[in-house]
Amino acid sequence: MDYTEKKLSSREIYNGRIIRVHVDEVELADGSRSCREIVDHHGGVAVLPVDAEGYAYCVRQYRYAYGQSLLEVPAGKLEPGERPEDCALRELSEETGYEAERLVPLGWLYPSPGYCSEVLYLFLATGLRPGRAHLDPGEFLDVERHSLSELEEMILRDEIHDAKTVTAVWRAGRYLAGEEASGCRAEC
Amino acid sequence: MDYTEKKLSSREIYNGRIIRVHVDEVELADGSRSCREIVDHHGGVAVLPVDAEGYAYCVRQYRYAYGQSLLEVPAGKLEPGERPEDCALRELSEETGYEAERLVPLGWLYPSPGYCSEVLYLFLATGLRPGRAHLDPGEFLDVERHSLSELEEMILRDEIHDAKTVTAVWRAGRYLAGEEASGCRAEC
Repeated sequence: MDYTEKKLSSREIYNGRIIRVHVDEVELADGSRSCREIVDHHGGVAVLPVDAEGYAYCVRQYRYAYGQSLLEVPAGKLEPGERPEDCALRELSEETGYEAERLVPLGWLYPSPGYCSEVLYLFLATGLRPGRAHLDPGEFLDVERHSLSELEEMILRDEIHDAKTVTAVWRAGRYLAGEEASGCRAEC
Repeated sequence: MDYTEKKLSSREIYNGRIIRVHVDEVELADGSRSCREIVDHHGGVAVLPVDAEGYAYCVRQYRYAYGQSLLEVPAGKLEPGERPEDCALRELSEETGYEAERLVPLGWLYPSPGYCSEVLYLFLATGLRPGRAHLDPGEFLDVERHSLSELEEMILRDEIHDAKTVTAVWRAGRYLAGEEASGCRAEC
């Protein structure tokens, strides 16, 4: 069924550095009216770098919204006009120092579709060459190296909660398992 | 390393029906100052109901923030003081009509830790008994039945983008595969 909601009016509440908030009056599918509180965000990129030995590099950083440090895949906001692939390589290099020969797209994610319009593009990065991290001013994080299966176990033990990290770990694991299987088939 | 950020002040921007927005001035790990734009949300629950034949019930609903209909696991906001388990059973019944004999916790998710404090509790529901859906006023959705492996394929084909749905499908699949394996081991 078509339950499209029609915008009747929009009131901007806040236009900040990383989010814009507006409240829209909408007409619902049955003709009644309601309002939608919406958080807009430029969109972002998350990139899981996996080396030739199957180890992934994640970052542990303090997240003020939760008052705790979280383990996450390297990620960052899209600059205006920036392609997700370029943003992925830039953030990877800034946060971990690694350059990547190859980016594999792992789809995109809607973090909280009830009130947020952010789109997060996910990538797997392989063919890694070490380099020097160069964090933005005010950015503090530690890089951690874990095998993909270790990250999967951490998710299943409820030690990793970040949505983009869960999705990237799962999809990267599936992609690499498929590659390995097809390589094995080609050899046999 | 400890990169804790200390709150210096907080300015409320908006206090709405489902979100509260505030901008806090914080002291960073190096003593410098920055601001954090934060969206608070009561928290929510997502529940993936899977029947005895391995089919899951998802809901397709219009999401104004993205201007399109999305396929998601049944989900909803926690009422003040409500336990996540009770919310899961309530939302499941409201959106699909199903009552569940058993809820398996599948951890919790942080949708967008850079600016959002929402916590989403995930559950698998089994032992389903059909009943009558009773949607909230202004809520419109269609229930779809897909096998878990079909949902996994849809995620890998980039047809499902909702973060809670991706995580719930993956974790439910892992949980049920583990149960099946241990049942098989017990039988052998």
